[in-house]
Amino acid sequence: MKILVINTGSSSLKYQLIDMTNEAVLAKGVCDRIGLEHSFLKHSRPGHDAVVIEKDLYNHKIAIQEVLNALTSKEIGVISSMDEISAVGHRVVHGGEKFKDAAIIDNSVMKAISDCIDLAPLHNPPNITGIEACKQIMPDIPMIAVFDTAFHQTMPEYAYIYALPYEIYEKYALRKYGFHGTSHKYVAERAAVMLGKPLSELKLITCHLGNGASICAVKNGKSVETSMGFTPLQGLAMGTRSGTIDPDVIKFLMDKEKMTIKDVSDFLNKKSGVLGVSGVSSDFRDIHTAADSGNSRAQLALDIFCYRVKRFIGDYMAVLNGADAVVFTAGIGENNDIIRRMVVAEMDNLGIKIDEQKNVQARGKEMDISVPDAKVRTLVIPTNEELAIAREAKKLLK
Amino acid sequence: MKILVINTGSSSLKYQLIDMTNEAVLAKGVCDRIGLEHSFLKHSRPGHDAVVIEKDLYNHKIAIQEVLNALTSKEIGVISSMDEISAVGHRVVHGGEKFKDAAIIDNSVMKAISDCIDLAPLHNPPNITGIEACKQIMPDIPMIAVFDTAFHQTMPEYAYIYALPYEIYEKYALRKYGFHGTSHKYVAERAAVMLGKPLSELKLITCHLGNGASICAVKNGKSVETSMGFTPLQGLAMGTRSGTIDPDVIKFLMDKEKMTIKDVSDFLNKKSGVLGVSGVSSDFRDIHTAADSGNSRAQLALDIFCYRVKRFIGDYMAVLNGADAVVFTAGIGENNDIIRRMVVAEMDNLGIKIDEQKNVQARGKEMDISVPDAKVRTLVIPTNEELAIAREAKKLLK
Repeated sequence: MKILVINTGSSSLKYQLIDMTNEAVLAKGVCDRIGLEHSFLKHSRPGHDAVVIEKDLYNHKIAIQEVLNALTSKEIGVISSMDEISAVGHRVVHGGEKFKDAAIIDNSVMKAISDCIDLAPLHNPPNITGIEACKQIMPDIPMIAVFDTAFHQTMPEYAYIYALPYEIYEKYALRKYGFHGTSHKYVAERAAVMLGKPLSELKLITCHLGNGASICAVKNGKSVETSMGFTPLQGLAMGTRSGTIDPDVIKFLMDKEKMTIKDVSDFLNKKSGVLGVSGVSSDFRDIHTAADSGNSRAQLALDIFCYRVKRFIGDYMAVLNGADAVVFTAGIGENNDIIRRMVVAEMDNLGIKIDEQKNVQARGKEMDISVPDAKVRTLVIPTNEELAIAREAKKLLK
Repeated sequence: MKILVINTGSSSLKYQLIDMTNEAVLAKGVCDRIGLEHSFLKHSRPGHDAVVIEKDLYNHKIAIQEVLNALTSKEIGVISSMDEISAVGHRVVHGGEKFKDAAIIDNSVMKAISDCIDLAPLHNPPNITGIEACKQIMPDIPMIAVFDTAFHQTMPEYAYIYALPYEIYEKYALRKYGFHGTSHKYVAERAAVMLGKPLSELKLITCHLGNGASICAVKNGKSVETSMGFTPLQGLAMGTRSGTIDPDVIKFLMDKEKMTIKDVSDFLNKKSGVLGVSGVSSDFRDIHTAADSGNSRAQLALDIFCYRVKRFIGDYMAVLNGADAVVFTAGIGENNDIIRRMVVAEMDNLGIKIDEQKNVQARGKEMDISVPDAKVRTLVIPTNEELAIAREAKKLLK
């Protein structure tokens, strides 16, 4: 069984073709600058150099067609025809309250995804475009939607309801949703394997630290709390996002800086976070370089980022009444030992203590980096959202 | 030495006259509806019934004059002339970054308080009005300003800087300030006495839970983190305030409900919190009554309130790397054993566990309500902001 995983953005489309008999990636790639000048497809297979094909990708349908051409090509392909694809798994950002699990896409699912556009106006429309393009080109192949929000639908009401007039929740389903659910779920499952205990008996704090970043409290395999909210803006300081601020900061900025609410939203989403504090970059490599050469604002950005992660770990230890493990994943969580060290520094009284030797060694591979007697284990677990999506799709096909 | 403590709101003025030789309250009261119809002064002395004097209090100066008339009156007074007052201590909400301690009010202090109006447009103007009225009537008596923000000025930079472009901080001093500082400091000092250890060796989490509510992490006697922010809106769910929300909720409300930013700010400050969720009241007695008779939204409001307090306690255990004690204070914290029980339920793995018998008994009196072997003590400590202000004033006079 081979499953094609698709992640569609407004002008990009990432794909992976996974052989589910051994979970091997047969090929993967990205279509970029869709609908723009100089669009291209970059396609790679294990053991081969990546191939870049410059091509006018006027829209997502053309892009999908190019992906299939590449996958079935005699020169760079890995399957003989698209009939070998058993299903297409689509990453969909927002499933609202409707989707507590992945779903086979039929008309009613399609409508429900459309109904969530108000909740994710930037993300769901390109996801829908991607699904529709695939349906046109592969009308007989099952399409499956896997939602970023679904895993968090197990949060209790007192966790997801904001302290706003309740009518606002009833009217708009305005509540905490949380994102990165596919990743949090995947690493929680891996953590159970690493710890040698059933997931149903574990209390985990999973830290997905990438350019977007969120933390999740996982109790007995279920998300009970997460740091992102109604949108992916709440919570941690991120690459370019402010995370949590005083809500009345927005009024102040509008009044003083003569910004519109749209301006402020862009400001908080695109110009803030470690980019805004450091004034250097949203890329942690640049920030580390600047900090190392004495840039105090770059150092401050790192300090703020790590401090917020540390605080959420404590927060979620209260939510869970302790924890079996803290898991670091995603670009920064998997690869950045400096950030991990800063986050868990001086948490020994809460049972968290890492072995610095192990911490430095853990780079993109699964590893328990705790000291032997740490009550709360600290794990590094690379995430694999594409594989997680493929697994969800496989499960649904049965 | 007798010190008059004044707390001025936009249409009210509370006062206490305290004899600092024994810290006894000689008289206290409130002028209410200043500048409105049916204004009055309510004056009380220990051992006597309170007296209500209906009087046209056109402005704060007239109100102050009436307070002095009452204090020096033959019938209901407690001093023979205002010359017995050694100093007037004024509660001032916002001291910005300028005031790390209380200050004797001279022209430059007055100007600095005015400079903070932008940061606290609702609170500092009436505080200034109160100070000016007192200065006119008591020109020879020292006036002392005690700031709600001052105690929190010891927070480290990575705690008080928001993840916004740094220039915004430089331009407007837009940062986390925190409030209730006088109360957090007072109960931290009392906790040290109760625990029989120097404050300089303690890690405390002080929970000021009233209609406004905030939590503070106190390390070695210094505030290092607090839940309110640039304004008193951030943090916990409160009587009518939302506390922390996803910042992009504001854009959504403006877009969908056609609200102005002023509308949204009022909505978040005055119509949200436990009032908004319950639809019943901002008064916890009403909410308990409703919840007890089966109102599920009232129960939800209680659950949300307590859950957020619980989460901040864990958060601050991470900030402090453990804690010696959690302190409950202010109206709800001192008197509401149900809320205390809900907050610390299932925190035993973090070392927090209370004796329910003691919890029920603790009502407005200092008490350690932990089980004997709890690693983190849970203390109930009534706050006394007026006494704290008078002490600061006394200290400055020396």
